Amino acid sequence: MLLYEEVSNRINEMIRQGTYRAGERIPSIRGLSRQMRVSVNTVMEAYAGLENLGVIEARPQSGYYVSASLSKAEQRQAAVQQAVEIAPSSVGSRDMALQVMSCISDPSLVPLGGGIPNTDLTPVAKLNRMLSSEARRFPRQSISYPSPQGHKLLRVQIAKRSLNAGCSLAAEDIVITSGCVEAMNLALQAVCRPGDAVAIGSPVYPTFLKSIQWMGLKVLEIPSNGEGMNLDVLAYVIKSNPVKACITIANFNNPLGTLMPEAKKRELVALLAKQEIPLIEDDVYGDLAYGSNRPPSTRAFDDKGLVLYCSSFSKTLAPGYRVGWIVPGRFREKVVQLKSLLNVGTSSPVQLAIAEFLTNGGYDHHLRSIRRFYARQTAQARESVLRNMPQGVRVSLPEGGYILWVEMPESFDSFKLYEEALQKGIGIAPGTIFTLADRYRNCFRINAAFWSEQTEQAMETLGELAGNLINS
Amino acid sequence: MLLYEEVSNRINEMIRQGTYRAGERIPSIRGLSRQMRVSVNTVMEAYAGLENLGVIEARPQSGYYVSASLSKAEQRQAAVQQAVEIAPSSVGSRDMALQVMSCISDPSLVPLGGGIPNTDLTPVAKLNRMLSSEARRFPRQSISYPSPQGHKLLRVQIAKRSLNAGCSLAAEDIVITSGCVEAMNLALQAVCRPGDAVAIGSPVYPTFLKSIQWMGLKVLEIPSNGEGMNLDVLAYVIKSNPVKACITIANFNNPLGTLMPEAKKRELVALLAKQEIPLIEDDVYGDLAYGSNRPPSTRAFDDKGLVLYCSSFSKTLAPGYRVGWIVPGRFREKVVQLKSLLNVGTSSPVQLAIAEFLTNGGYDHHLRSIRRFYARQTAQARESVLRNMPQGVRVSLPEGGYILWVEMPESFDSFKLYEEALQKGIGIAPGTIFTLADRYRNCFRINAAFWSEQTEQAMETLGELAGNLINS
Repeated sequence: MLLYEEVSNRINEMIRQGTYRAGERIPSIRGLSRQMRVSVNTVMEAYAGLENLGVIEARPQSGYYVSASLSKAEQRQAAVQQAVEIAPSSVGSRDMALQVMSCISDPSLVPLGGGIPNTDLTPVAKLNRMLSSEARRFPRQSISYPSPQGHKLLRVQIAKRSLNAGCSLAAEDIVITSGCVEAMNLALQAVCRPGDAVAIGSPVYPTFLKSIQWMGLKVLEIPSNGEGMNLDVLAYVIKSNPVKACITIANFNNPLGTLMPEAKKRELVALLAKQEIPLIEDDVYGDLAYGSNRPPSTRAFDDKGLVLYCSSFSKTLAPGYRVGWIVPGRFREKVVQLKSLLNVGTSSPVQLAIAEFLTNGGYDHHLRSIRRFYARQTAQARESVLRNMPQGVRVSLPEGGYILWVEMPESFDSFKLYEEALQKGIGIAPGTIFTLADRYRNCFRINAAFWSEQTEQAMETLGELAGNLINS
Repeated sequence: MLLYEEVSNRINEMIRQGTYRAGERIPSIRGLSRQMRVSVNTVMEAYAGLENLGVIEARPQSGYYVSASLSKAEQRQAAVQQAVEIAPSSVGSRDMALQVMSCISDPSLVPLGGGIPNTDLTPVAKLNRMLSSEARRFPRQSISYPSPQGHKLLRVQIAKRSLNAGCSLAAEDIVITSGCVEAMNLALQAVCRPGDAVAIGSPVYPTFLKSIQWMGLKVLEIPSNGEGMNLDVLAYVIKSNPVKACITIANFNNPLGTLMPEAKKRELVALLAKQEIPLIEDDVYGDLAYGSNRPPSTRAFDDKGLVLYCSSFSKTLAPGYRVGWIVPGRFREKVVQLKSLLNVGTSSPVQLAIAEFLTNGGYDHHLRSIRRFYARQTAQARESVLRNMPQGVRVSLPEGGYILWVEMPESFDSFKLYEEALQKGIGIAPGTIFTLADRYRNCFRINAAFWSEQTEQAMETLGELAGNLINS
């Protein structure tokens, strides 16, 4: 456990046990630093995490206080208040967002902007050997038309691993896709028609907004807290709108980094099942948990076949292979038909190679390495953000993945920061591309996967730029 | 040149030179067999081919006559007559067609039904070596996200080969796709919106009908003659309907086997260009010409960027790799965006392997082998059809590819034949799946790619079944 996590846990525990009560002042940063003999930075980081979870709040000129927790009734009231303002939005021209997304994936920039994983730890030579050995072992299968559902060897391996995510799938339940983006598109196409409305956790992963626009769907953005989508708001929204699907990244959300607790996943699945609304889960980050266990999929709590589970090997192994999968539940036949219609099936040699890597390549060992790697990278990146950005910055405290969500004071314009950073050769993802509404202007997303001397320096530059923006 | 082709060419030449004039009787089958010292079967085949091209016609109890060619004016009149009956059709539920397509691709059947190529001649070991060597040579590129447009190495090779199809493309003009089906879908999505009408040569390749249904488009089926789509009908149809795209398989059409002559391609491109209607060409069979030169693409005659050219390596090399491409002309940017949205990009290792095969694998040598192979297979299959099917059968005489279109007398029910053949473990593709209208019930398609002792026997069985159907 990292030092700041220990600090954070201790304080959190004291609050839960009533040592510090709602509205009460907790030790100052310097005070706790002396008490616990840790650095000021460590305490700052611990407090930022607790603040991010909504456990404590900063009051200007005064210090940190345990959040005045609203009563359950008050919470619901507030949620409904939020919800009545949520109307289905068509995704109009998002030229600006598209331009931003294209800019920040420019490989000549310092790579804080895009969402791509770091594949330095991928055992390329081993994977390559398997690409070759499997094509030799199955010469016919490697060159003949793949079945739309995908190679059984691979589906069996994925089914075996589903236990890790709390499921017990059969090979028959799984359809291989050309990456998770294709899986998500298939899911949406299987359950929605143009004009339908979908509910989705906000801030929204921008690639979803592209797909939704392309399909002519409408969006209901559900606000999120430290544990993912606000279910009170969702409950209100699906009662008052004909919602045809709900989309979630429950495990290590992109961009928020949040992990939806098990109980809440169960509640989410039950809530949607009552109205027979399909739940589409993107779980590409689930295997990147920093802890030793990966969190369960929402599919683990689904007994009606309403969850369409989507994932891939792009964040863990080789994005260039374009191999993902979908577990479409009761929509399987339709998804297989759509897959066949779109591109017949997924490329065979890469399917066979990944099946072999899962069988004999030491995938679990590899996962452990990259989990440790990303935990380290993300901790360094967080510390750098807290050290370099002006006071008032808050940054997410993810327990998996490599994405950080940075929140600046309300009046901050992260789009200006994005523009100025670009001039300095640095890419960041401004908050505005994660919504159709006028939100998150004070936020931005950074990618911690490539943390290095270079990104450290870029962070210093960002800190200066942000300081100037605040003072100008 | 095969013997029946020589016979056919001689008679055709005599007709063109006026030795036999329109309406005049030509030698009887037995007569010509004696005159030219060839078998009766050879003459029958030659005459069937000429009849198929509309050059001669059989009159019951009387013999063969040079077709009474209609005057140009009469032809146009007839075309317009046909055209006024063509109304845009929505693709409703095509469950029956889907079921047929799924049945005939069952690998346990004698494979006359599906449209898949024979990959026995693919140098699997060499391709496999390249899969491995290229992944080793470009380890980063093979595992990192591909660019949506595809690897430049591959695009350069495709551009170089475009000279064969009468084009002179640059790598920039090309977008790599996961097979030709994906390329066609991208093309349709780039130029059409739900509700739009597209004109398409009929009989229609059933996969197109699936895509068109999925996209919510309407279809205008343009009848075809021995040289492809009837352009007089097309001209009338695009004048009287807001057609948003035209789709063609100009080279060795599936299912008709027809090759659109160069002059007609030029005319087709010009006709559509006048109204700025995009032309989507599927050219997967172009490289399978039996002659030494492959025919040009319609893209060769396009100077407005209105042709969206689609092809793949699935019919020539390795369908399991799922590598194709599109040359989207003026719609390039949109196609790249759509490709990125659908599945980010095409799998990298297979792109790199095919690029290397095109560079150093002897692709041209390989193409020459499979061209010869398919020419032989198709000739044998044709002969078998003519030998085994009841009198009155006509079969296409393709100059490339491996598909044969069999026409039985008007009253014949090929769907019944399909059903009875299934019982005997034989797959054929009944004509009704190639249209939304009530047409081609007397026709069926067979795949000559896997011609063997087994298919010979299956053809005998089909002949018996057909005979029984006629006599019942």
